[in-house]
Formats: sequence, C-alpha cells, structure tokens
Amino acid sequence: MDSRADDALELLGLVAYVELATFGRFTADAVHAPTLRERQALSRSAGEVLARQERVLGRIEEVGADPLGRMGAFDGVLDDFDARTVPSTWWEGILKGYVGYGVAVDFCRLAADGLDDPDRDLVAGVLAVGERVERSATVIAEAAASDPVLASRLALWGRRLVGEALGVVQRLLAERGAFARLVARTAHDVPDDRRQAWVFAQLTAEHTRRMGRLGLAA
Amino acid sequence: MDSRADDALELLGLVAYVELATFGRFTADAVHAPTLRERQALSRSAGEVLARQERVLGRIEEVGADPLGRMGAFDGVLDDFDARTVPSTWWEGILKGYVGYGVAVDFCRLAADGLDDPDRDLVAGVLAVGERVERSATVIAEAAASDPVLASRLALWGRRLVGEALGVVQRLLAERGAFARLVARTAHDVPDDRRQAWVFAQLTAEHTRRMGRLGLAA
Repeated sequence: MDSRADDALELLGLVAYVELATFGRFTADAVHAPTLRERQALSRSAGEVLARQERVLGRIEEVGADPLGRMGAFDGVLDDFDARTVPSTWWEGILKGYVGYGVAVDFCRLAADGLDDPDRDLVAGVLAVGERVERSATVIAEAAASDPVLASRLALWGRRLVGEALGVVQRLLAERGAFARLVARTAHDVPDDRRQAWVFAQLTAEHTRRMGRLGLAA
Repeated sequence: MDSRADDALELLGLVAYVELATFGRFTADAVHAPTLRERQALSRSAGEVLARQERVLGRIEEVGADPLGRMGAFDGVLDDFDARTVPSTWWEGILKGYVGYGVAVDFCRLAADGLDDPDRDLVAGVLAVGERVERSATVIAEAAASDPVLASRLALWGRRLVGEALGVVQRLLAERGAFARLVARTAHDVPDDRRQAWVFAQLTAEHTRRMGRLGLAA
C-alpha cells in the first residue's frame, strides 16, 4: 500500500474512533439527562454519530483494510483527555462533548483536506452531517442565557477543555507521521516550523466561534 | 379518540420507552466493554434499537398524538427493576440487558397481538428486527461455554432477573387497563381469572428458550 493510501487509512481510523467516543459521550449524557425530552434528543444525536461512524468503517473495509484494527490503533488516545477533564456537573459533561467533539472534528477536517477523493469527500460529508448535531448546543445556550453564574462557569470550563483538546492534537501530530503529512498537504504554503501554530490558530478560531454560538466567552 | 386507538397508543408508548431504555442499557455496556470489538458490536446493537424506537415515535406522531408524552407516561416504570437488579459484573450487566429486554419484547409482542393493523404489523416488525440484536447473546454464550463458574453464576442471575421482570409485567397489567384489554383480545379463549397466569407461562417459556440459547440453565 502506498504512503498516501496509508495516510488516508490513518485518518479514517481516527475519524471512526472519534465518532465512537462521541457516541459514548452522548449516550452517557443521555442516561443522565434531566428530562425525557433531552434524553431522546441526545440519544438521537448519538444514533446519528454512530451511523456516520459506520460509513467510515465501511470505507476502510471497502479498500481491503481492517476497520477494527485501523480504529483500534487509536484506542485510548482520548483517555488522558478524559482523565484530565472529568465533568463535575451534567452541564460540564454536555459542554465537554460539544467542545471536545468540535475540536476533534475540526482537526479531522483540516487533515482531510490533504486527502485525495473519494476519501476527502467521504470525511467531509461525514463531518458535515456532524454539524447538524447541534442539539446539545441548544440545550447549553438556553441554560446559559437564563443563568449567568452557570454561563460564567461553563466559559471557564470551555477554556480548560480546549486547552486539553489541543494537547491531544499536538500529540497526534508528533506521534503519527500521517497527520503531519496530511496537514502539510493542506497547508502547503505554511513553512514546516509554523505548521503546528497554524493548526492551533485554526482550531482556536473555530472554538471561539463555537463558544460564541453558545453565548459563552471563549 | 376511541378506546382501541388509545390502547394502541399506550402500547406504542411502552414499546418506545422500552426501546429507549434498552438503548441506554446497551450503550452503558458498550462504554465498559472489555475490547473495542465488543464495544463496536454493542454500540451497533444500540443504534439498531434506537432506529426501531424512532419508527414507533413516528407512528405515534402520524396518528396525531404526542410521542414524548405517550412515551413519558412510562418514564420510571423500569426504575424499580433497575434498582433491584444492579449488576455486580460486566457480564451480569450484559445478561440483564438481554433477559430484561427479552421479557419486555415478549410482553409487548403478546399485547400487540391484540392490536389492529397497521399497529400490530408495525410493532411486530419493530420487535422482529429486535431478534437480530443477538450480539450480546453470542458474547455471553462464548464466555459461558469456556467458564463453568461464570455460567453457573449467570444462570442464577438470570432467574433473579426474570422474576423481577415478571414483577414489572404484573404491575403494568394491574395498573394500565390498556394492557389487560390487549392481552384479553390476544388470549380471548383464556378465562379472565387465568389470563395473568397464561401471560406468565408464555413469558417464562420464552425466557427458558432464551437461556438455553446461551447455554445457561433457566
């Protein structure tokens, strides 16, 4: 298998793992949702995430690779992030899912720009559908609007989350050559030694927009 | 709304709630699955359960009723069962999902025989798809086959589970007239005072078959 095809499989494996982790996050939030309405909404979001993940696994299989193996290469990659960001309230858990997933999706999208079609199209499509998973955003935005103390606590928590999430991205770029190569193809006009800073700037800007949509200071 | 239509809505609400609870059970088991393979398999089962549940909610909406309200009427109906059957191991949790869901599905199926079409067809179809959710069964059967101590503990746990599950059925029949009427239509040749015993006999027989498929004594 040539290097470009293998880089694509690395990213597909990461996308599948991130979506499986997100599914787990949403379902855990669903179980503890304060009302049946929120429980149903979060469960529905989780179901959509899993359906997308299955499309990615299907693509890995289609090119003759092992879906579980490719996804399994990233098993545990979020454990450190999870251990360092244990939510102390249901709201913090919801925001964690939203921010953590947001950063992961933005990173995968940046890296996917370095893929060839049809993988680039597939990942973009899978992650674009992800933008519809805005139900938790509505839940947070409504609560924050009516409770300034909650809003200020969640803003602080959001800064903590994005810092830890960028730490995961940094490790992925350092430890997995495929991602550094994909990002280099995406940002080919950015000098090598500025590329990580460029990635962080993109991800931070997206995070700021995302927090703004929640009515929270980034 | 006539009584038959309302009885149908009662059952559809129960089916939707049971499927949502099952979704939660599977996803909780998925998070703690010992391997990524089992985690993916249980997540997939959960996704299938939720897709079925959405079909039921869609039908409730189609006839002009409130899906969340109809489902919400049963919110908490499994809390007592859950509190009385807290699994002490991951395996007990898996078996709980399998047995608890099995009894619930069998009861809903019995009651659905008392519905008119298209609801009878819908519920039968939704619950038949459920039979494909046998991944946790395979996981249990394999583990039980290779570990007689585990098998014997799980057999005991299964008896505990089915007893508690039948308790839930008994309360539903006593407290919700719709289910007694639906079962009466299903088992119209069984005398009124023997009908609950008849329901229990059906459910117990199905449970015995189910445990047999796992290689466990019922």
